[in-house]
Amino acid sequence: MEIKVLRKVLDAYDTMAADNREVFAKNDVFVLNLMSSPGSGKTTLLEKTLAHLDGDIRTAVIVGDICSTHDADRLARSGVPVVQINTDQFGGDCHLAAHVIREAATNIDLERIDLLVVENVGNLVCPAEFDIGEDRRAVVLSVTEGEDKPIKYPLMFRVCDVALLNKVDLLPYLDYDLELVVSNIHSVHADMPVFELSAKTEEGLEPWLTWLKGQVWNKKRK
Amino acid sequence: MEIKVLRKVLDAYDTMAADNREVFAKNDVFVLNLMSSPGSGKTTLLEKTLAHLDGDIRTAVIVGDICSTHDADRLARSGVPVVQINTDQFGGDCHLAAHVIREAATNIDLERIDLLVVENVGNLVCPAEFDIGEDRRAVVLSVTEGEDKPIKYPLMFRVCDVALLNKVDLLPYLDYDLELVVSNIHSVHADMPVFELSAKTEEGLEPWLTWLKGQVWNKKRK
Repeated sequence: MEIKVLRKVLDAYDTMAADNREVFAKNDVFVLNLMSSPGSGKTTLLEKTLAHLDGDIRTAVIVGDICSTHDADRLARSGVPVVQINTDQFGGDCHLAAHVIREAATNIDLERIDLLVVENVGNLVCPAEFDIGEDRRAVVLSVTEGEDKPIKYPLMFRVCDVALLNKVDLLPYLDYDLELVVSNIHSVHADMPVFELSAKTEEGLEPWLTWLKGQVWNKKRK
Repeated sequence: MEIKVLRKVLDAYDTMAADNREVFAKNDVFVLNLMSSPGSGKTTLLEKTLAHLDGDIRTAVIVGDICSTHDADRLARSGVPVVQINTDQFGGDCHLAAHVIREAATNIDLERIDLLVVENVGNLVCPAEFDIGEDRRAVVLSVTEGEDKPIKYPLMFRVCDVALLNKVDLLPYLDYDLELVVSNIHSVHADMPVFELSAKTEEGLEPWLTWLKGQVWNKKRK
């Protein structure tokens, strides 16, 4: 009986994710699920990304945190619509699930945006297990976190479509093997695109922006 | 009925943690639960700690990872007994729970050690919710992760007894406010001891070692 209950819950999650996907498609909105460990630089990357998309692509952001509105406050300065989800209202959840995204999205005028970025809760494990109805998933990995993370947290790297290797401005001060981390990423997800960049200095930001814009326009054309 | 089932599971966890605590006390073993985000430097800190405890305090380590034996391989070089738990055998769990620790501990001769360190799965959220029967909890926070993490992940900082601010050797290359992070830590956990250190350069390691040794001997004396 326990298994039955669990199955029912999982089915409900899948249904909600499919429903979200339909709503986003109907409104021609491309959805990116941005995930990483705490402190790998998702918010700074997003600030810089929003600044460079300005004018080209109309964007909104949903930010997930267990508590606080730090990230939403930072992102709101970009002038785009930002909705903060605090999961402590949902039991302190360590991830965002489809029904939470659904509720948050009702606060956004989907007809007036092209891109919705979901900045997930900082966690390299649990968010990887939850389909929220997104089009693409991106994982941010800071070079300060070591080269072994793709091997130790393979599900995240398997489910994501692109990896962003952040904080490369710190490479001169670290013992870090760029070739090793890329080979570790490719050992769990062959041919995954990897962008090496620094959100802080904006080094390497351009290829990532080009990729993202391409993804958004591809969906629009369909 | 769902609530009943959940209550039963939670009770079972508490009972297992209490059982572990009794087993550890009977064998005069102090247990430290070491937690942090992925890549904040738990394993390097532990390598250096083991090297400096050598001779004084007989130690064993249980290492939790979703998969791989990277960390156990590194720690085994210290010459102490190391048991690796791969949680992918337990559904890819994002934390270590009491029953998993119980099973792992059967591989360690508890009568011959003073200190058992549990290096938890890299995750700043979920491990904070699980009592494994430890005596003390330590959270490692890398200065590369930003100052806001105690505010965004307060449970972890509330349940821990000590915070280790790691990678201070990188401070010259970061925009980081040490006073701010300490005040953020103390806003969620007043008077929590905070040790600023670099596991890599061993700067600031001594106060942490003194604290840890004091904790172990305190338990022995009881």
